[in-house]
Amino acid sequence: MDNKKEAMQLHRDLRGKLEIKARTKTDSAQALALAYTPGVAQACLAIQEDPDQAYALTRKWNLVAVVSDGTAVLGLGDIGGLAGMPVMEGKSILFKNFANVDAFPICLATKDTEEIIQTVKNIEPCFGGINLEDIKAPKCFEIEQRLSQELDIPVFHDDQHGTAIVVLAAVINSLKLVGKKLEEVRIVMSGAGAAGMAILHLLSLEGARDVIFVGRKGILDADYYDDPYRKKILAQCNPHHVQGGMEEALTGADIFIGVSGPGLVTKEMVEKMNKDAIVFAMANPVPEIYPDQAKAGGARVCGTGRSDFPNQVNNVSVFPGLFRGALDVRARKITDNMKLAAAHAIADAVQDPSEDYILPNAFDLAVADQVAKAVADQAIKDGVARK
Amino acid sequence: MDNKKEAMQLHRDLRGKLEIKARTKTDSAQALALAYTPGVAQACLAIQEDPDQAYALTRKWNLVAVVSDGTAVLGLGDIGGLAGMPVMEGKSILFKNFANVDAFPICLATKDTEEIIQTVKNIEPCFGGINLEDIKAPKCFEIEQRLSQELDIPVFHDDQHGTAIVVLAAVINSLKLVGKKLEEVRIVMSGAGAAGMAILHLLSLEGARDVIFVGRKGILDADYYDDPYRKKILAQCNPHHVQGGMEEALTGADIFIGVSGPGLVTKEMVEKMNKDAIVFAMANPVPEIYPDQAKAGGARVCGTGRSDFPNQVNNVSVFPGLFRGALDVRARKITDNMKLAAAHAIADAVQDPSEDYILPNAFDLAVADQVAKAVADQAIKDGVARK
Repeated sequence: MDNKKEAMQLHRDLRGKLEIKARTKTDSAQALALAYTPGVAQACLAIQEDPDQAYALTRKWNLVAVVSDGTAVLGLGDIGGLAGMPVMEGKSILFKNFANVDAFPICLATKDTEEIIQTVKNIEPCFGGINLEDIKAPKCFEIEQRLSQELDIPVFHDDQHGTAIVVLAAVINSLKLVGKKLEEVRIVMSGAGAAGMAILHLLSLEGARDVIFVGRKGILDADYYDDPYRKKILAQCNPHHVQGGMEEALTGADIFIGVSGPGLVTKEMVEKMNKDAIVFAMANPVPEIYPDQAKAGGARVCGTGRSDFPNQVNNVSVFPGLFRGALDVRARKITDNMKLAAAHAIADAVQDPSEDYILPNAFDLAVADQVAKAVADQAIKDGVARK
Repeated sequence: MDNKKEAMQLHRDLRGKLEIKARTKTDSAQALALAYTPGVAQACLAIQEDPDQAYALTRKWNLVAVVSDGTAVLGLGDIGGLAGMPVMEGKSILFKNFANVDAFPICLATKDTEEIIQTVKNIEPCFGGINLEDIKAPKCFEIEQRLSQELDIPVFHDDQHGTAIVVLAAVINSLKLVGKKLEEVRIVMSGAGAAGMAILHLLSLEGARDVIFVGRKGILDADYYDDPYRKKILAQCNPHHVQGGMEEALTGADIFIGVSGPGLVTKEMVEKMNKDAIVFAMANPVPEIYPDQAKAGGARVCGTGRSDFPNQVNNVSVFPGLFRGALDVRARKITDNMKLAAAHAIADAVQDPSEDYILPNAFDLAVADQVAKAVADQAIKDGVARK
């Protein structure tokens, strides 16, 4: 049986990758009187008097909504909320299996920005955090920004920041290996969607000064996009005003980071990069350039989004631990510093980076613990923790 | 430790009466590739092609949203969605413990009718059914009616119909015991909220012809309320144009059904009822009249909403089995016939009714099975089943 058939069979057999588990029995009048009426009224009244008690008396402290309108699911594009549900269920169980976060899929029947924002605000009382998932750019930027401002619980668009955090961790360890500094290297990026913009933002915060963004029609400037989110962030790019396309951008560059499409980079282009080139080609399932080709072109470190090559860039190293940490200290939001702290925690999980071991094993549960601790500590330092 | 303290302690110890359970592991690259990317894409594509596949490939088939704006929680009134969460969690685990339905609390931050309707419609894709809970009258009528019309999954306001179904079961068995016919008895009701209107509606469907509704200012007519839902249903009442208050209404009546407030009925009033009077006084926690007083006034059958007297009228006999049956046949809606079928299944669960054994034990899990079967069969007969 091939993987596609096996995956379908698993989904048919399971009929849902998650279920609800009752944490207490209700099999007698006494049990019912404590967990339900009339005893439950005491918990309600305590919360009415002090809303913070919801964190002590209900599951709010540990519940995250995995919210999607299904407009950018995997590489499948706009398949809608219902068809996106298998992914949201999968994401939810990763939260549980990796960091004991109770996540529940909220698959939306609307794709309208304002309706999405209003719906999430309306269902917020049950949840301690909101994970936005597979919502397409540029509306994902506005939805996340608005919800972060208007809600008092952490809101995180994993496609943007989860990817950005693990990419930054990969860049930190790659540069450590080759002995270069982020402030001094030239980085070429392709793929100006949700992930690309977030990677660029986080690299800039960490100190990157020379990033060139390449689009389908060549090197991008701020005028390329209409939305203010991308305009603002692209305005910081290409300080040396390089002209041309991918080949010109990569000439003399140190790092390539792709979250775009298959085959955009050739061995010949990599040959024009600086010595000890770093190539993270994360288009899925077919990368911008396969590692063997990049290595043949002289790259020293290669990574992809795939599990069948070394250095898989996998968000699962990020989001379970990040929410675990944020929930543990009841953070009001996810600050940029918390994202940087998560990236450093992931990078630090690899004691001695080598060409084929830049990032920690995605299945190492200790990483989620380390990320959680770093994020929680940073939330306290940033003054956004409530306990 | 008294019950209130014990209930608070239970809630503090649990920190949430439910949690998410992952139904599959994700502890290896192979497991992740099947349950998440890239394998999950197959399930997404199958649903995109045929939305019905969501019932085979995700938990939609078994997921019910327990939706509340917290405006009519227990006897506490309008405490809001967040403070209502302990009740919604409790309700959710009753669904699980009694009928293996996966129910999840959706506690709303809005109390606006249109926003509630829109929010539920927006989150519908994840769910196979919607249980509305603790939403005050009259808006609960419009919300349920609109959602039932506009969604293609069962929508059920338990405070209305759950109560009505178990009350009808109690009436059926009480009349069987005393040898009277529903078509011939006079019924007096008090409490014209969500439950009262639904009880009246269901009794009428079953054949009741002479129901008098008593409000705070005396016997009600259709002009008493402004909302069209209550106007329409009250127009059928009081065919003999009885004038006055509770005492006049009960004089010569056979059944009293109260879902109103404490102490509205006295022993002296019960004395004026017909022989073999039936008194269901369900105001909580203090009934309209205590069973000992009603018995002293000559009542033969007495019931309350409390677990510490015989004949507890408890919705838990209804909603788990009703949704189990509706989900099992993928009913598009809950028809009146399905409600009647549920009431008869509950009544039939008591083979030989006696004064103190009118309704089945609320903890008898076989009742949920019987209700589920009756509801599923009726859904098929009514042409609302999709499998």
